[in-house]
Amino acid sequence: MMVSTPAKKQVKKRVKRPLVVRGEPVVQSVIRATIEELARVGYGALRFEDVAARAGVNKTTIYRRWPQKVDLVQAALSSFAERALGRPATGSLRGDLMEIGRAIVAKSCSAQGESLVRVLMAERHPDMVAIDRALHTHFEAVPLAVVKAAIDRGEVAPDLDARVLMGTFVGALHHCIFMKQQTADETFIGKVVDLLLTGALIR
Amino acid sequence: MMVSTPAKKQVKKRVKRPLVVRGEPVVQSVIRATIEELARVGYGALRFEDVAARAGVNKTTIYRRWPQKVDLVQAALSSFAERALGRPATGSLRGDLMEIGRAIVAKSCSAQGESLVRVLMAERHPDMVAIDRALHTHFEAVPLAVVKAAIDRGEVAPDLDARVLMGTFVGALHHCIFMKQQTADETFIGKVVDLLLTGALIR
Repeated sequence: MMVSTPAKKQVKKRVKRPLVVRGEPVVQSVIRATIEELARVGYGALRFEDVAARAGVNKTTIYRRWPQKVDLVQAALSSFAERALGRPATGSLRGDLMEIGRAIVAKSCSAQGESLVRVLMAERHPDMVAIDRALHTHFEAVPLAVVKAAIDRGEVAPDLDARVLMGTFVGALHHCIFMKQQTADETFIGKVVDLLLTGALIR
Repeated sequence: MMVSTPAKKQVKKRVKRPLVVRGEPVVQSVIRATIEELARVGYGALRFEDVAARAGVNKTTIYRRWPQKVDLVQAALSSFAERALGRPATGSLRGDLMEIGRAIVAKSCSAQGESLVRVLMAERHPDMVAIDRALHTHFEAVPLAVVKAAIDRGEVAPDLDARVLMGTFVGALHHCIFMKQQTADETFIGKVVDLLLTGALIR
């Protein structure tokens, strides 16, 4: 028997939006609500109740699919990552990196993307280590394929460390946007890509 | 005439540590206290009262020198930046970058440095834009000198964009430490430096 405290009543009332039918649309709306809540309050303060209320579903609907907060957030961020990066195929590593760079900047500068990156950087919850790793594996799929194509074309050596290349690229863009609070425009992306491709030393 | 409310009494009590004498030591202890408070609560929540209490000085002592919070924080972070980076002179750009890389990693992985970077990345207070810019001008002094020396030695072209080089370097290290939550060890720093120096493309 649950005692109906005023706090519980309030939660009930907030969940009383039209309930979505089970299935793919529910998943999508829970995923979206999770990203929005995460960008708003961060991982530590994220509550199933608030995600449920925002998605217009029952809390148990979420629990059934993602029993732990870490599962829910990992699913949401992976889905976000998946939608963030298309697979470029411009025919050159430079062209592909430019497209990836533009996509990263666009995503990082969107209100939601910006909040997410800041939350991910600021958050030190122990769960975040596992989430970050899973997320980066996801984020790395496209860049790894791009580097593989460049190896096949003979542009780069077969032993090139694609993870170092991509981490350095993303790091440079995020440093500009989040630490220096400057605009990462086309010229800036181009300068970073050229540095990564040809290096600083005189050839 | 100040009314002595209980809240004010409490602040008074916390300030009742032995007052440091005016001059350089006071400045140093206020600077240190500001960095510690900033790492603890961030810019938005930083209060002169708490800095004064932590430094064991009177609030007015701080106000007299730094009338605005933005002045105080800018001074503290510039001092932190100054102490973070020595001026390497190994005789090669690679050696100099390795030393800068080790210093950045050491500083970023210290409890205080980590908190500071996370706070700086997470914070969106309007004052932070000006502070970030001033801080980066400060942080860039050493790298700019290092690149200037490399130009003089004929290692790099005179028109090399030292800011892009250094931003990319710092970004790569921070991405590894703060986004991927991985260890930026000697091997990793070396890989990033080699990429920045020689580039990904086959020469």
